[in-house]
Amino acid sequence: MSQPALIALDWGTTSLRAYLLDADGVALDMRASSAGIMKLPEGGFDQTFEETCGAWLDAHTQLPVIAAGMVGSAQGWVEAPYVEAPAGASALVAGIVQVKTDRGATVHIVPGVLEQGTLPNVMRGEETQIFGALASDTSLEQKDGALIGLPGTHAKWAFVRDGRIERFYTFMTGETFGALRDHTILGRTMHPSSTPDQPAFLRGVDTARDAGHPGVLATIFSTRTLGLTGQLTAEQQPDYLSGLLIGHELRGLNEVLSREQSALAGKALRLIGNDALCDRYRAALARFGCDDAPTVAHATEHGLYRIAALAGLIAAPVRAAQ
Amino acid sequence: MSQPALIALDWGTTSLRAYLLDADGVALDMRASSAGIMKLPEGGFDQTFEETCGAWLDAHTQLPVIAAGMVGSAQGWVEAPYVEAPAGASALVAGIVQVKTDRGATVHIVPGVLEQGTLPNVMRGEETQIFGALASDTSLEQKDGALIGLPGTHAKWAFVRDGRIERFYTFMTGETFGALRDHTILGRTMHPSSTPDQPAFLRGVDTARDAGHPGVLATIFSTRTLGLTGQLTAEQQPDYLSGLLIGHELRGLNEVLSREQSALAGKALRLIGNDALCDRYRAALARFGCDDAPTVAHATEHGLYRIAALAGLIAAPVRAAQ
Repeated sequence: MSQPALIALDWGTTSLRAYLLDADGVALDMRASSAGIMKLPEGGFDQTFEETCGAWLDAHTQLPVIAAGMVGSAQGWVEAPYVEAPAGASALVAGIVQVKTDRGATVHIVPGVLEQGTLPNVMRGEETQIFGALASDTSLEQKDGALIGLPGTHAKWAFVRDGRIERFYTFMTGETFGALRDHTILGRTMHPSSTPDQPAFLRGVDTARDAGHPGVLATIFSTRTLGLTGQLTAEQQPDYLSGLLIGHELRGLNEVLSREQSALAGKALRLIGNDALCDRYRAALARFGCDDAPTVAHATEHGLYRIAALAGLIAAPVRAAQ
Repeated sequence: MSQPALIALDWGTTSLRAYLLDADGVALDMRASSAGIMKLPEGGFDQTFEETCGAWLDAHTQLPVIAAGMVGSAQGWVEAPYVEAPAGASALVAGIVQVKTDRGATVHIVPGVLEQGTLPNVMRGEETQIFGALASDTSLEQKDGALIGLPGTHAKWAFVRDGRIERFYTFMTGETFGALRDHTILGRTMHPSSTPDQPAFLRGVDTARDAGHPGVLATIFSTRTLGLTGQLTAEQQPDYLSGLLIGHELRGLNEVLSREQSALAGKALRLIGNDALCDRYRAALARFGCDDAPTVAHATEHGLYRIAALAGLIAAPVRAAQ
């Protein structure tokens, strides 16, 4: 059995995942908890770290530790100031901030990425996943750049070229869905359903995609009125609303692409995220003519491993170093 | 002093307003309460009606009573089924449903309006306000039709021609604002402000108006990132978000108009709603080149009065009867 070489942490707002990786970046062990930075138990960062990784460090005292995500935010363990886009993996390495734990271990915290502009954008954690995807799929380093989607509470779409995150967008699709379902009139006529209703979902996607409506603030009301007029059951309404919002996200992305003489139709892109959500996005992307959007597996571990290698924390072969 | 001739109720989801009108439609007395149909005190509709209007009926036993709003919905006192658009005042009269109170009075409930289609739309209460506006401003009966905006929790924009509501849109602008502010990450960096910040509001409007962004699900995130980058204070963020959402609403409306070779720029329209909110909409409309959008006062009372007159509940001169 191979030896542990790195502890890699994906420490976000609502969850913590810790990986014990070997010298090839393969996970030997994994621990997941709900101790995100906004849900820390008493004892805070240090004790949570100790409970999660202490046994690994007891057995292997010299293991290097790397972490990415909201743990490096202003509300995190220690702030790792944003690196500005365009940003490559080497810029992330240069922006790593260290924090010393009570037991004397050093945690290396990867910074997030900030894109300045009229509508600034920020990410923390996704940059590491993106570099993980690049490491595991060299076809993404195409001449005209790659487009990577990260569905979720705050969905990100990143344009990557020459190994750098050039620019990206944030869509508050997941969080807006939750707020509309749980805190507006739309939820009052909905019933949760144990199985997804694909036709209702795709009806929402198609409605958002097609011209002729005045935008998402208007189309969402049809979740209610299609119920009132007997065209959607209470169980179909959540999937319809989800399809609407994801459809509006993809329509907006498509408009950005069209200004660059590009389009989702026929495009090859990659998704990073949980399987069920990526499946929903793939179904929605197909309605926009995009049928080449596989999920990149293990992007988080691969990204943490790659950055740790570039930072010299582990002696490992580094592909596409820059 | 003139004699009471009509009791007119505006009975919505969260509030009840009762007017005692004379034969010319002038309000002699008014009572407002929070006893909307979703907030009824014990005793329900009948007792709330009695507490609100009983004294008026004790003094004038034969007064006719008319009501509009959610009181006629499936969750209301008695359901007054929707009348289909295009709908004139006479169609509303034909759709009136009566309910007898415990004391023997008859309440005449005005139906709402339904527009069928791929994205159905419904209104209850606004139809009555619109006919009130038409009654008090004959210039609205122009050849090419009138556009009337009703800002609020669910903002409505109605196209009126030849005295009929032809079609309309619903934007969940107000309710979405509340859900985003109170139930997403955007609220976490906000502080309420006692005075509106007009520049922050207009910055939001302009951002939504200008092309180059991928839609409202993306622009709302800038409420947070402009804070993170020191460009918006915590107190400015609510007004910025409000401007964004109203701006997206108007942009969507403008796109609908552009498909008909029309535009908000240079257009004459009317607003119905509370003064502060109409002021915000006027400021936003001005950024789209529309500087002729006065508020129509007393639209609710005028509409109830007009429909009561058309229904023969009161003997009154009826303008623009049809």
